[in-house]
Amino acid sequence: MSDILESIRSIVGAAGLISSAEETAQYATDWRKRYRGSAMAVVKPASTAEVAAVVRACHESRTGVVPQGGNTGLCGAATPDSSGSQIVLNLSRMNRVRAIDAHNNTMTAEAGCVLGNLQKEAEKAGRLFPLSLASEGSCEIGGNLSTNAGGTGVLRYGNTRELVLGLEVVLPSGEIWDGLRGLRKDNTGYDLKQLFVGAEGTLGVVTAAVLKLFPLPRSRATAVAALQGPDRALDLLKGTLDACGERLTGFELFSDFCLSLVLKHFPDASAPFAKRFPHYVLMELSDTRPGDAVASLAESVLGAALENGEILDAAIAQSNAQAKAFWKLRELISDAQAHEGPNVKHDVSIPISGIPDFIRATDAELARAHPGVRMVTFGHVGDGNVHYNVSAPEGIAPDVFVRQTAAINLIVHDSVARFRGSISAEHGLGQSKRDEIRRYKSPLELELMRKIKSALDPHGIMNPGKVL
Amino acid sequence: MSDILESIRSIVGAAGLISSAEETAQYATDWRKRYRGSAMAVVKPASTAEVAAVVRACHESRTGVVPQGGNTGLCGAATPDSSGSQIVLNLSRMNRVRAIDAHNNTMTAEAGCVLGNLQKEAEKAGRLFPLSLASEGSCEIGGNLSTNAGGTGVLRYGNTRELVLGLEVVLPSGEIWDGLRGLRKDNTGYDLKQLFVGAEGTLGVVTAAVLKLFPLPRSRATAVAALQGPDRALDLLKGTLDACGERLTGFELFSDFCLSLVLKHFPDASAPFAKRFPHYVLMELSDTRPGDAVASLAESVLGAALENGEILDAAIAQSNAQAKAFWKLRELISDAQAHEGPNVKHDVSIPISGIPDFIRATDAELARAHPGVRMVTFGHVGDGNVHYNVSAPEGIAPDVFVRQTAAINLIVHDSVARFRGSISAEHGLGQSKRDEIRRYKSPLELELMRKIKSALDPHGIMNPGKVL
Repeated sequence: MSDILESIRSIVGAAGLISSAEETAQYATDWRKRYRGSAMAVVKPASTAEVAAVVRACHESRTGVVPQGGNTGLCGAATPDSSGSQIVLNLSRMNRVRAIDAHNNTMTAEAGCVLGNLQKEAEKAGRLFPLSLASEGSCEIGGNLSTNAGGTGVLRYGNTRELVLGLEVVLPSGEIWDGLRGLRKDNTGYDLKQLFVGAEGTLGVVTAAVLKLFPLPRSRATAVAALQGPDRALDLLKGTLDACGERLTGFELFSDFCLSLVLKHFPDASAPFAKRFPHYVLMELSDTRPGDAVASLAESVLGAALENGEILDAAIAQSNAQAKAFWKLRELISDAQAHEGPNVKHDVSIPISGIPDFIRATDAELARAHPGVRMVTFGHVGDGNVHYNVSAPEGIAPDVFVRQTAAINLIVHDSVARFRGSISAEHGLGQSKRDEIRRYKSPLELELMRKIKSALDPHGIMNPGKVL
Repeated sequence: MSDILESIRSIVGAAGLISSAEETAQYATDWRKRYRGSAMAVVKPASTAEVAAVVRACHESRTGVVPQGGNTGLCGAATPDSSGSQIVLNLSRMNRVRAIDAHNNTMTAEAGCVLGNLQKEAEKAGRLFPLSLASEGSCEIGGNLSTNAGGTGVLRYGNTRELVLGLEVVLPSGEIWDGLRGLRKDNTGYDLKQLFVGAEGTLGVVTAAVLKLFPLPRSRATAVAALQGPDRALDLLKGTLDACGERLTGFELFSDFCLSLVLKHFPDASAPFAKRFPHYVLMELSDTRPGDAVASLAESVLGAALENGEILDAAIAQSNAQAKAFWKLRELISDAQAHEGPNVKHDVSIPISGIPDFIRATDAELARAHPGVRMVTFGHVGDGNVHYNVSAPEGIAPDVFVRQTAAINLIVHDSVARFRGSISAEHGLGQSKRDEIRRYKSPLELELMRKIKSALDPHGIMNPGKVL
C-alpha cells in the first residue's frame, strides 16, 4: 500500500477506505456508464475532521481529489480520470441532520444527506424544503450544492444557490472554513459561500450547509391547457404570474409530439383532452391556505385565457389521482423518447421572452441540416429552461445518427448562444462540457474563472479536469 | 494638470471631469459628514467604454479608484482617503434603463439609475422592482448592488443579491466583463457576478445589471399587534408565515420605549391603541389578488393569536391613511432617537430564533456596564435584522457619552458574535468596520477574501482601504 493510502487509512480507518479495483469500480464510473475512470482508492470519511485530514494528506502529496455524493450527476463531474492516481472522496457516510431551527426556518445538514430524506425531515418539522428533482431518492445535498441543482421548484423557490444560507467547506489546503451561518442578511465582505456553490468540487469540498425552509403548501391545483404554440404559452405565463404571483409553482410546456410519444410507449397514459392540440402547458398553483381557493383561481385564469383566445382548451384536475396523471404525462417524456430510439439531449436556458423564436429558428436549422429529425421539445418554461431534445429520423440506423451528435450539438448550442442563453441550464459542466464551453464563454470570463481556481487551489488537486 | 488627469480628460471630456478642490469636496465626503477625504479629481463617465478607458488609465498609473453612486452609504465606502491621490469615479451620468423585458420579467439598468426611478419604470411596465430603502430617492442601483443593499422588502424578496441575474463590470485591468445575462438557470462554471455584488467596489466597477421584476401586489393589509416581548413576536412570525406564506411582506418589531420617543418628538403621531403594551409588531400582508381577502386573512391570523394569548391586542388599518400612519410610527423611530440626544447605532443580524435571548443578554450587559443607557430596539425581525440602538442616559453630557461609543460597540458586537450573528447586516463594511471585522471573522476567512482580492486586483487600485 502506497504512503498516501497508508496515511489516509490512519485517518479514516479500514471502514472508510476501499482500495480493491473490484470494489472501487462502481464509484469510478457514473450511473449512466458514460464516463469510466479508475480510482487509486475510494475514501469515505465519517466527519468533517476526517475530510480535512484526508484533503491535507492529498494536498501534501499533490494527489487529485474527486468529491462524490450520490453519483447521480449527468456530466461526469464525480468520476475520476483513468490514470488511477486520483482518489474518490465519497461523502455518503456524512449523513446527519445536525439541526432544525423552526423559528429561523433553517436546517443544518451534512453533505451526504440524501435529498429525499431532507425533504422528509423538513416535513416532519412542518416545513418544506423545496428542492426537488428526479434523482431525489439517491442524490445527496453536497452534490446538489456543488452543482447548484435546479429541478421542478425553481420557478417559485430558485436554484439550490438560493436555498443556502451557510456552508462548511474543506479547502484544498485541508483547512476547514466554518461558514455555517443561519443569517438572511450579512454584509461583512465577500460572500464566499457563493464560490463553492456550483463549483462542482473544483474549489473545495462542501461538508455541511445551512438550508432555508419554507411554509408547507396546504392546497394545490393542477391543470393542463392546450394552446397553439410557445408564443401563447408566454402570454399565459405572464397573465398567470400577474394574477397568481408566487402561487404559481409549476409551468411546463410540451409539444403534441412529446405527448404522442408518451401515449405510444406508455399505453396506460391517457391524453388530457379528447381532441389533440399543437402544444400543452402543465400548470400548478399552490398556497399555504387550505381549501379550494387556488382551484377557483386556476379556473378564473384559464377561463379568461380561453375567452381571449390565448388557449384552446383547459382541464383542471378534479382529484389527486388526476393531478398525478397530468404530471405523469410530463415526466414520462424522457423515457418515452428513450423507447423511441436514439436521441441527442440538450439542457439549455434562454431568456423566457426568446424561447418561441429560439425554438422556431433551431427547429428550422436542424430540419435543413438533418432532414427527418424529430424535435422533442419540453421543459420548465417558467424559468427559461428548455430540454431541447432531438430524436433520430424514423428508420435511420442508430450508429449513423450517433455520428451526427456533435453536429447537432453545434447547431443547437450555437443557436442558444445567439439568443444569449446557456448551454448548461441545470446540469453543470463536469467533464462533458468542459471543452465545449470554451466556444461560448468569453476568454475574459474563462480567465477570471482560472484566476479564482489558482487563488484557492494553487496546486490543482481539487477535481482536476472538471469545469476548467 | 498631471498626466493621468490629462489622459482622463481626453477620455471623458471636460464635462466628465471635475478637478477643482472646491467642486470635488462634496464628492469627497459622505452625506453624514462622518468621513472626509480629498480627491485628485471626480470623474463622471457617460458610458461603459469611458469607464473602461478611465480604469485602464488608472491601472497603468496605479491610481486608486473610488467608485461612487448616490453617495448615500453609511460606512464611508464611497469616500476617498485624505491623500488626494485617488479619483472618485462617479457613475451618476450612466442612468439609462437599457431594456425592460416584460415576458422575461427583467430590467437592464445602468449603474447610475436612481433606485426610485427604477421602481417607477418597473411600475409603468406593470411590474414591481421590490428593492426599497430610506434613501431610494437618491441612492443608485450600482451602489445598491455593490453593497448588497437590504431594506424593507428582504423578508419577501431577498437582498439585492437575490434580485440580480446578470452584471456588466469593468475589471481593475480596465477590461469589460459582459455578464449581462437574463437567465434564471445557468450552470456553466463559477457564478462570477456573486463576487462583485457586495464587494463595495473593491473588485471592479459595476456598470450595468439585469434585474428581476415581480408581479405587482394589488391588495395589502397592514396591522399592529401588541405583545409581551420578542419571544411572542417569534411565535407570531411563525404562525403568520405558516398561514400566509409569501403574502407576508413586512414584519417589524419595536418596543414601547421606541413608541414613546416617537410620540414625544412627533406630536402628530398617535399610539395604535388606547392602552400601552411592552412591545409591538407592525405586520404587512400583500397579494397579487385584488379585494379584501388579505384583510380577512390578517384578521383571522391575529384573531387566533389573540385567542391563544400570543398577542395582547391588534388593530388592522381600515384605510390607506391608517396604514401609512402605522408605518410612520416605525419609520420615525430613528429620527425620534436623534431628537432625544446622542446614541450609538448597530445594524446587526442574528438567527431569528436567537433574537429574544440576544436582546435580553445584551440589554443586561449594557445596563451593568453603562447604567442608565436606554435601548431603542427595533428592526426587520422577519429577516433577523435588528437595529439595536443605544440612547444616552438622560441628563448625561453628550461628550461623556460619545467617549463610551467604542465600549458600547464592543459589548454589542461581542454579544452578536456569541449568537453567531453579523455585525453588519445590511450596511456593509466600507471604512467604518474594516478594522473591527478582524475581531469577528476568522483569519482563514479574511485570508480567503485577500486571495480573491489579489487574484482580481493585484495592484490594489480598486477602492483601496475599504472592506479589507
